[in-house]
Amino acid sequence: MLTQTIIQHLDAVRKQKPLVVNITNYVVMNNTANALLAIGASPIMAHSQQELGEMMSFSGALVINIGTLDSAWTPRMIYAVEQANVNGKTVVLDPVGCGASQLRTETSREIARLAKKLIIRGNASEIIALAGEQAQSKGVDALDSSDTALGAARSLVSEYGASVVISGATDYVVFKEQVVKLNNGHEMMPYVTGMGCTLTALTGAFAAVGDDTGLAAAAVLGVVGEIAAEKSRGPGSLQMNLLDELYQLDSSVLTKRLKLQ
Amino acid sequence: MLTQTIIQHLDAVRKQKPLVVNITNYVVMNNTANALLAIGASPIMAHSQQELGEMMSFSGALVINIGTLDSAWTPRMIYAVEQANVNGKTVVLDPVGCGASQLRTETSREIARLAKKLIIRGNASEIIALAGEQAQSKGVDALDSSDTALGAARSLVSEYGASVVISGATDYVVFKEQVVKLNNGHEMMPYVTGMGCTLTALTGAFAAVGDDTGLAAAAVLGVVGEIAAEKSRGPGSLQMNLLDELYQLDSSVLTKRLKLQ
Amino acid sequence: MLTQTIIQHLDAVRKQKPLVVNITNYVVMNNTANALLAIGASPIMAHSQQELGEMMSFSGALVINIGTLDSAWTPRMIYAVEQANVNGKTVVLDPVGCGASQLRTETSREIARLAKKLIIRGNASEIIALAGEQAQSKGVDALDSSDTALGAARSLVSEYGASVVISGATDYVVFKEQVVKLNNGHEMMPYVTGMGCTLTALTGAFAAVGDDTGLAAAAVLGVVGEIAAEKSRGPGSLQMNLLDELYQLDSSVLTKRLKLQ
Repeated sequence: MLTQTIIQHLDAVRKQKPLVVNITNYVVMNNTANALLAIGASPIMAHSQQELGEMMSFSGALVINIGTLDSAWTPRMIYAVEQANVNGKTVVLDPVGCGASQLRTETSREIARLAKKLIIRGNASEIIALAGEQAQSKGVDALDSSDTALGAARSLVSEYGASVVISGATDYVVFKEQVVKLNNGHEMMPYVTGMGCTLTALTGAFAAVGDDTGLAAAAVLGVVGEIAAEKSRGPGSLQMNLLDELYQLDSSVLTKRLKLQ
Repeated sequence: MLTQTIIQHLDAVRKQKPLVVNITNYVVMNNTANALLAIGASPIMAHSQQELGEMMSFSGALVINIGTLDSAWTPRMIYAVEQANVNGKTVVLDPVGCGASQLRTETSREIARLAKKLIIRGNASEIIALAGEQAQSKGVDALDSSDTALGAARSLVSEYGASVVISGATDYVVFKEQVVKLNNGHEMMPYVTGMGCTLTALTGAFAAVGDDTGLAAAAVLGVVGEIAAEKSRGPGSLQMNLLDELYQLDSSVLTKRLKLQ
Repeated sequence: MLTQTIIQHLDAVRKQKPLVVNITNYVVMNNTANALLAIGASPIMAHSQQELGEMMSFSGALVINIGTLDSAWTPRMIYAVEQANVNGKTVVLDPVGCGASQLRTETSREIARLAKKLIIRGNASEIIALAGEQAQSKGVDALDSSDTALGAARSLVSEYGASVVISGATDYVVFKEQVVKLNNGHEMMPYVTGMGCTLTALTGAFAAVGDDTGLAAAAVLGVVGEIAAEKSRGPGSLQMNLLDELYQLDSSVLTKRLKLQ
């Protein structure tokens, strides 16, 4: 039944081609724009306060990623979230490196508090740090395994009314007392920069067509990443094949491959 | 005859390896630098007002792309255009998202008014919006077909003394009462981010060796994109193959493939 | 014997997965983060003064690359170097375009003077300009051959107590009166943007595990670039294959291919 819902959301993205506004980090702008295009959505990367109001009025969702955080950008992120709120749009927050610096932890919390409709996508260490528990991170990479972040995710669901996606070797989607576990993906994926950021961006596309859980994006990227990695000699090929597979993905492959419980 | 001119310009780019200064958006900086290198030109991505004067003095052309527009960058763009004017160099303007926000529309017009030697490269909706007509855009993507922008392009030619390239399923190059129609390209191309930006950057390389129309770049990218897409499973492969084909392109293939009228 | 040391450093990077903080240019952020991941290191791309102190306290090295220099970023670079000094970490400086503008020449020198443990990686023209001699550059590309920069490199070694890597058709690693010459690499490599920046980033990873010369990174990238280029139709494939080969590289291939004297 969950699988059917995921497929319906995938079809909806391809049919509606939703606009997704992204304020994201410099490292992954190209990849995440390409991933959104490959799945059928329409990315806008914008960060000027003078236009974010207009843009949120005709877009389907807002993605905020703090990967290369800068005090000059924080007010723009805040403003964009306010505009998403005014327009009733979902905000997808990627708290990159939350816990690795005070600045990142505090900025992530400020955005989470502000957003009315919120999905949080992070690795285990980021989710744990965002919830105020003690995380074991190494820079922007997680040292905690996904299941250790389940308690933190539940507390974020309750504190912010958010849905939470914990990504890692196993992904968990946590929303309203429900937990879905996803066992797709591939061990080569962490060797490509911004794989989590790509999941966050796709979550924005699915939110724009009505998936307020983050589940469809996690399912799609897990399956597609797995297929792409199987064809790849290394992370260079994987980055390329991932876009091809997002573009080629059909519902029968998704159904056959998907391991969720 | 047009084909011969295009081939001469391609040879000239490879021989002269012109320097092209780019003030462009964060999303495509890597792609457009790589496209310029692959065709044989020499890209400089710079945006500091303290060095743009020096750089325009020894470079062949200036590319201004407003894809991730920011009020902190606008004065630098203006300054760079002034320096291009002082040095008699062509400015290639990519009015990304013109019409999608007031900020973009106004900034595009300010740059177009200022540049003395100007080529404008946009999709149909951007060209229509820049000319002050009513466009149908969806974020930064065009909903108008290229031929509907011909009138707008002609009015830009007359208003700014510019040459105008409208890119889309069909490309049009409009200059001094003349219109060239190009029927190359591939339907997979819009699934790669910044394909239009790449055309704009290449237009800068050809402008630096004397093509003040934008025609050679449109011909080259149309043919190369078509060849690359035929070999590609999806947009990831296409992005990679495009650079390989730009590097490999020879004049006989170009002549054989080119569909212009 | 040098080869054994290089292999030990490669093993150490893969085992220790050192964190490398990068303040680098927009064009190559994605490539250099991916190269660091592919070799086994852990990249952080950060530029906020509010967090660089924390980040240098738990990272292994600092990479400063001035490719898209901006007066707003210079104080952050300076601050990061000071924090690297406080924490006893090596600074790897990439003086991109040194000599192409006054701004770049002066900023490069300021950073070189400030860093206590320093490796400089540049092309011949940049090294010559940094040493105050007359270089022949073309924008950010070198027109001088590597061997003509040997005198300049020696004077940088003596002036700044630095190790210097001159990259080009032949690479030279110059440190404490010693010079190592490397004859790997491939003529297709300059057709990919940021290949030098990738070398600089890898130099940071090896510095973090104890190579204060830059030799291991130059050896690895020379060999890997050569292998990748032999498999590539053009620069698009090369960029992809390079990451795959970094990921796949083993010590026997490195030993067999390495041409150093």
